[in-house]
Amino acid sequence: MRLPTPISKLIDSFQRLPGIGPKSAQRLTFYLLHFPEEELQKFSESLLNLKKGTKLCKICKNVTEFEVCSVCDDPNRNKSIIAVVSGPLDAFALDKTGFKGVYHVLHGIIDPLNNVGPEELFIKDLIERIGNELHNVSFDNLNEPKKIELILATNTSMEGESTAMYLSKLIREKGYDQSQVKITRIARGLPVGGDIEYADDITLSRALEGRSEVTR
Amino acid sequence: MRLPTPISKLIDSFQRLPGIGPKSAQRLTFYLLHFPEEELQKFSESLLNLKKGTKLCKICKNVTEFEVCSVCDDPNRNKSIIAVVSGPLDAFALDKTGFKGVYHVLHGIIDPLNNVGPEELFIKDLIERIGNELHNVSFDNLNEPKKIELILATNTSMEGESTAMYLSKLIREKGYDQSQVKITRIARGLPVGGDIEYADDITLSRALEGRSEVTR
Repeated sequence: MRLPTPISKLIDSFQRLPGIGPKSAQRLTFYLLHFPEEELQKFSESLLNLKKGTKLCKICKNVTEFEVCSVCDDPNRNKSIIAVVSGPLDAFALDKTGFKGVYHVLHGIIDPLNNVGPEELFIKDLIERIGNELHNVSFDNLNEPKKIELILATNTSMEGESTAMYLSKLIREKGYDQSQVKITRIARGLPVGGDIEYADDITLSRALEGRSEVTR
Repeated sequence: MRLPTPISKLIDSFQRLPGIGPKSAQRLTFYLLHFPEEELQKFSESLLNLKKGTKLCKICKNVTEFEVCSVCDDPNRNKSIIAVVSGPLDAFALDKTGFKGVYHVLHGIIDPLNNVGPEELFIKDLIERIGNELHNVSFDNLNEPKKIELILATNTSMEGESTAMYLSKLIREKGYDQSQVKITRIARGLPVGGDIEYADDITLSRALEGRSEVTR
């Protein structure tokens, strides 16, 4: 028995997606056979429009429909607090916490084993952006020197940590000192609801290092 | 932060697939952003062609590109052994075992709780097919009366069992007796490599009922 070509082609396409193996791809394809024609058409169009309808924000490199994304365009956002993330989904996750700063999307993480070096990411753009931001005169406080905070919000994996280290080193090398660019890293510790008993050694020692004073 | 429309549309489409929740749909969509344009186009076309390029085999109702599927069209297949399955994937799975009979695809299972009755499935077509098959004179043995075997290969779930029971009752009611239509059901027992210790009661009692003589 040979699967009809239209079916095996779609199975192939599904199989190229992450986390979808041959069995899931088959199941999804045969499920779609019972889908209404117009739904299939909508799905197909969404795929075509995905890249055609989107571009990268010229400031933060996040995915957007316009020249400048809704976050960078929002006057209520604090433009001097920039969270550096590796992907749009990370920015999206941070945003749901109510974070009111802006983002810079690297579109990847430094990972030499997978041939991803700093030049593959939007790091050069970040350095330029810091320069622009510092020279942007704020009319609110003309006398005070401008200062920005960079929150390194890459994953806490080995690659995420080394990307964060690389970035902080690079920014200092470029001559921006603490009085101009404050560099912070998201806290590593126990997830809320976590068990000390089951936490791994590194997480626990990071949780101890990052302890904060109880004030009330 | 608002996701760009082309992105949220594709997330919506992915979410309609079985086993894909909001998080997976997001992950898949953002993964596709890094896909080459031509791959996206291929994917999109496969979706469009899925239903346009396929139809149901007029004999066995399996999905095919032609009027008659490759199995029904194969002269080396034994047309008098018909495995009745609920979906094309089941036929595909049976075929990988080297089964050399033919199939009949019901496209569903009788499931009153989900409003699927016998008239929603290709059961009427099965009865007609049995009639046609029995009246088809075989030139090899003109004197012997024709006999077919129907293997009821629906799932061993409650719905699968009741569909099998319904079918066997219906065929006898239509006047086909054992001399014309032999009805069999796939064996229920321990899966190969299975532990008796962990098998459930019903499976174990079915395994006992269906025991076979050890001849060597």
